[in-house]
Amino acid sequence: MSATLYYFDGRGKAEIVRLAMAAAKVPFTQVDIKEKQQFETLRAEGKLIFGQLPMVEYEGNHLVQSCSIARYFASKGNFLGSNEQERLKVDILFEGTRDFNTAFMPYGFLGFKEVLDNAKNTAMPRYLPIYNFILSRNGSNGHLVGSKLSLADLGLLEVILTIEELLGEDELKPYPEVQNFLKVMKSNEGLASYLRSDLRRRKNDERYVAEVKGVLY
Amino acid sequence: MSATLYYFDGRGKAEIVRLAMAAAKVPFTQVDIKEKQQFETLRAEGKLIFGQLPMVEYEGNHLVQSCSIARYFASKGNFLGSNEQERLKVDILFEGTRDFNTAFMPYGFLGFKEVLDNAKNTAMPRYLPIYNFILSRNGSNGHLVGSKLSLADLGLLEVILTIEELLGEDELKPYPEVQNFLKVMKSNEGLASYLRSDLRRRKNDERYVAEVKGVLY
Repeated sequence: MSATLYYFDGRGKAEIVRLAMAAAKVPFTQVDIKEKQQFETLRAEGKLIFGQLPMVEYEGNHLVQSCSIARYFASKGNFLGSNEQERLKVDILFEGTRDFNTAFMPYGFLGFKEVLDNAKNTAMPRYLPIYNFILSRNGSNGHLVGSKLSLADLGLLEVILTIEELLGEDELKPYPEVQNFLKVMKSNEGLASYLRSDLRRRKNDERYVAEVKGVLY
Repeated sequence: MSATLYYFDGRGKAEIVRLAMAAAKVPFTQVDIKEKQQFETLRAEGKLIFGQLPMVEYEGNHLVQSCSIARYFASKGNFLGSNEQERLKVDILFEGTRDFNTAFMPYGFLGFKEVLDNAKNTAMPRYLPIYNFILSRNGSNGHLVGSKLSLADLGLLEVILTIEELLGEDELKPYPEVQNFLKVMKSNEGLASYLRSDLRRRKNDERYVAEVKGVLY
C-alpha cells in the first residue's frame, strides 16, 4: 500500500516521516503544498485534525503529528525495539534527537547564519558528545539501541545529515562514533535509495521560506 | 515495585508522568530538587542522560524525557490503545495535547497574566473546539479513543485541570463534551486519589519560579 505525504516542498517536520517511510520501505508519493488554497482545502475537508502539516494519507487514514506518523511507520519496519527495555531506550533516545533537531528547525526562518551559529555554540557541543557516548556504550555498531536500525537512529540521522550538509563533515571529526554511525546509516538500502531520490527535498532557502509563509499567513 | 520521581517541587514537565503513574496505579515517591547541588549530583552520577529533569528511577532504570516516561507507564496501565488503529489515534491525540499544554507551561516564567491571556486568546479557542468535537465523535463517553482511559485522555486532563484552576470552570461551558470528560476523569479512582494527595504539587508561584531558576542557572 502506497502512502501520500502532504507537506511544503522542503524538509521541515516531514523529514523524520520520510526517513521512517523510506527505512520501512513503504512507498510514498508527495503532494507539495505551495499555495494557501491547497492548505485551506485540506483543512476544510477535515483532513488536518489540528490544522497542521505534515499529513499522510495511508489506508484511508489521515495521519498527523510528525512524531506520531514517524512512530507509526517505524512500527511497520520493526524499528521501535524488540523488547520492553529496547522500546524504552528507543523512545527516550528518539525524544532526545527531537530536542537536538529543534536547534536546526528554524534554519532560514530565524536567519541562516544565526541559526547555525546558535546550533554550533549550544546544541552541538551538548548533544554530539552524548550520542557519541551512547553509540560507544552500545558496542560501536553504528546503532543507538541493539544491533539493528531503530527510530532513534533515524532521528539522529536527520540531525547528522543536517550538520554534514550545512556545516561540513569536519564538524563530526571529534565524534568518531557519530562518523561511523553516519557511514552505517548511509549503507542502509532503503535510506540510501531515498537520499539519492527526488523524494529528498532540498535544504531550506529563501524561496522555501517565502513559500511556507505564503501558505500559512 | 515503587518508582521515585526526581523533579522540582512543582508540576511542569513531570505532571504528565505523575498522571500516568497515578492512573496505572504505580506507587511513587518524589525527591524534590530544590538546590543546585542536588541537580549537579544527579548529573555527575550519570543518571540524567540529557542533563534534564524529570527523571524516574524504576526497576534499576533511569527514565528521562517526560513523554517517554509517560508512555512507559501508560503501557503498564494498557492506556496506549487496544489495537493498531487505537494506538495510532491515542498517539496522535496525545501529541496534540502536548502542543495545547505548551501554552500553559511558561506560566510564571514568562509572567502570570501574560501567559494566561495568551493561552486564552490563541490555544484555547483553537484546541478546545477540536477536543470537544473528538469527544463527541467518539460517542460522548468521556474518552477520546474507545471506551476506556488512554494516554490521550491523561494529556487532555492535564490541560483541562490547568484551565479549571487558573481560569475557572466557566471557561469550559461552551464545551459540554469537555465538561463531561473532566467529570469522567475525576471519577477515575487512581486519578482522584492522586489529585487529593500530597503527591499533587501546587500551581506555579513566585517561590517555585525562583527555586527552579536557582537550580538551573
